Amino acid sequence: MEAGGAGNGSNGAAQTKGSGGDGSTKTPPPLPPCCVKARAAAPESEAKCHATVVSGWFTEPRSHCGKASKVQYYNNPMWPGEAHSLKVEKILYQGKSPYQEVLVFESSTYGKVLVLDGIVQLTDKDECAYQEMITHLPLCSIPSPKKVLVIGGGDGGVLREISRHSSVESIDICEIDQLVIDICKDFFPHLSVGFEDPRVQLHVGDAVEFLRNAPEGTYDAIIVDSSDPIGPAQELVEKPFFETIARALRPGGVLCNQAESMWLHTHLIQDMLSICRETFKGSVRYAWTSVPTYPSGVIGFLLCAKEGPPVNFLTPINPIEKVEGATKAGREIRFYNSEMHRAAFVLPTFAKRELEAYCAST
Amino acid sequence: MEAGGAGNGSNGAAQTKGSGGDGSTKTPPPLPPCCVKARAAAPESEAKCHATVVSGWFTEPRSHCGKASKVQYYNNPMWPGEAHSLKVEKILYQGKSPYQEVLVFESSTYGKVLVLDGIVQLTDKDECAYQEMITHLPLCSIPSPKKVLVIGGGDGGVLREISRHSSVESIDICEIDQLVIDICKDFFPHLSVGFEDPRVQLHVGDAVEFLRNAPEGTYDAIIVDSSDPIGPAQELVEKPFFETIARALRPGGVLCNQAESMWLHTHLIQDMLSICRETFKGSVRYAWTSVPTYPSGVIGFLLCAKEGPPVNFLTPINPIEKVEGATKAGREIRFYNSEMHRAAFVLPTFAKRELEAYCAST
Repeated sequence: MEAGGAGNGSNGAAQTKGSGGDGSTKTPPPLPPCCVKARAAAPESEAKCHATVVSGWFTEPRSHCGKASKVQYYNNPMWPGEAHSLKVEKILYQGKSPYQEVLVFESSTYGKVLVLDGIVQLTDKDECAYQEMITHLPLCSIPSPKKVLVIGGGDGGVLREISRHSSVESIDICEIDQLVIDICKDFFPHLSVGFEDPRVQLHVGDAVEFLRNAPEGTYDAIIVDSSDPIGPAQELVEKPFFETIARALRPGGVLCNQAESMWLHTHLIQDMLSICRETFKGSVRYAWTSVPTYPSGVIGFLLCAKEGPPVNFLTPINPIEKVEGATKAGREIRFYNSEMHRAAFVLPTFAKRELEAYCAST
Repeated sequence: MEAGGAGNGSNGAAQTKGSGGDGSTKTPPPLPPCCVKARAAAPESEAKCHATVVSGWFTEPRSHCGKASKVQYYNNPMWPGEAHSLKVEKILYQGKSPYQEVLVFESSTYGKVLVLDGIVQLTDKDECAYQEMITHLPLCSIPSPKKVLVIGGGDGGVLREISRHSSVESIDICEIDQLVIDICKDFFPHLSVGFEDPRVQLHVGDAVEFLRNAPEGTYDAIIVDSSDPIGPAQELVEKPFFETIARALRPGGVLCNQAESMWLHTHLIQDMLSICRETFKGSVRYAWTSVPTYPSGVIGFLLCAKEGPPVNFLTPINPIEKVEGATKAGREIRFYNSEMHRAAFVLPTFAKRELEAYCAST
């Protein structure tokens, strides 16, 4: 859930385009309930304020500040009715870019924490689960990935994981917010180390624009390490965005997209699955993993293969244990392994039932 | 994490025995850090107070009340430094038994919530993950389970799950707190329905006492649906307790014990694995599942087989999909399935590394 390269703030390039802004004027199809909720609440989430630290605790998220009422202490449209709090040892950084507010603090239990616009993006303790899974699920599903694109991911964690793959020749990253990159170099060097790989080409800017300018069929894999689909980032879950991604992938190329929680956002996931099956035409699958500091303690991933050489996401064809140098000392893998890869696609009965129609394509 | 049958409060039968109280006076071995933490904090957790609902939100847990300071808002020795909050629509019940404080409220997002001594035990939305996994992991690992014992589990959820197994002839349950049973009949009928199975024999009392009086080698499976090992329930993670369990199991019989979070309590889990390997001598395994309203969003289970006919927990020998009537309408399974069973034993690399030495026995 890193800063969305396609705009994650109130003044970003993407915002001028608005939701679904690809020039299309046709009426959008009816939205499932959770999407409606996300949209309805968007103006509220734009009332920017610094993440709140009260009495030594950070609570995610507080939408109203300034004229903060004690009653509306927690209020996020993506996960209404619950909140997670972390004890703060020390605030390390508070700042504001043109796109978002940035907070870094040292927590008692999860190490350092990066917060953007009041939402926890990563913590030292559990970042491994997110960064490793969002990277190796796609890269271990295809043989010899060579050209990879990261959208968002300004903390560098996904880059760090991609660089374990010796077959990779070039890594483009398109992150809109230079401040996120700079702050992570200061406070999260074990993530931003990913930028030191000579294969990395950094593009600071709007990802939708970047994708439009990318030559067709360029990438073996694209990883979208985006923010939640509220406000400007809403377009990151809509058809035009996925079409731009599909265009930039080679036949049989793969996308891994952050895809929220199976406990909280089944309708949003159904919607994304349905759009992606139409768009990519290859295998489309939902996987999930445990990340304690994300809402409901899990995060999902949408894995999509473009029409072409078939991809079977369920079994890693390029197992990390056999990638030369991938697990060498100094860059220990903490969460992912080939068994976790397979297990990530196993769904609880309720999720299987709700997503089955959308998951049928293998 | 149901009320521990072996005592979960300040006035219970178990408390008079104290930690590890089986008459043994030898010095206990040095405790790993998280156990030390749990013990050191025990007196604090005994300062009983009602779970706090402030400004329409329940926050788990607040150890200090009465002279509550605003600063020490969240404080639980088992998961220091973090807290989870749920928005309260309506408080449905507040009461106190000789063992614990009981709170039931309607939340905005997770349905009704049962709270004991300030700790969320279950919610309508995610109870399925806990109840189904703690029950079917052991019962689907052995052919034709006949005699089953539940320790704790006063809400009835584990009973409801056991009754899906047509091979079962008798179900004993030993729950210390009659109030929990009564309250769940009123507010969680979809759980307490488990008590209606004619195979169920309810014993209200102390589980350690009950186990001592049980004829040796009685049970095919024992399920310990206990509270966290703080204060009196500490003995539920110590050797004498496991020895009493092992005595009550038939050769090749199985135990499934609530075993905390792989993210937060690795040392406690190592300790339990080590004790259980010594005690049971058959296969000993750790499994986990996603439960959003538990700390870190996951809960673990310790699966142990007593010496005798070998048990391979990793593959269900008695798959739920083939148990006659188990998945019939009206009692839909929401979380567990045979693929989830297998996936539950797949560990992230860090947990595998930390628990491997203790998990080696298959």
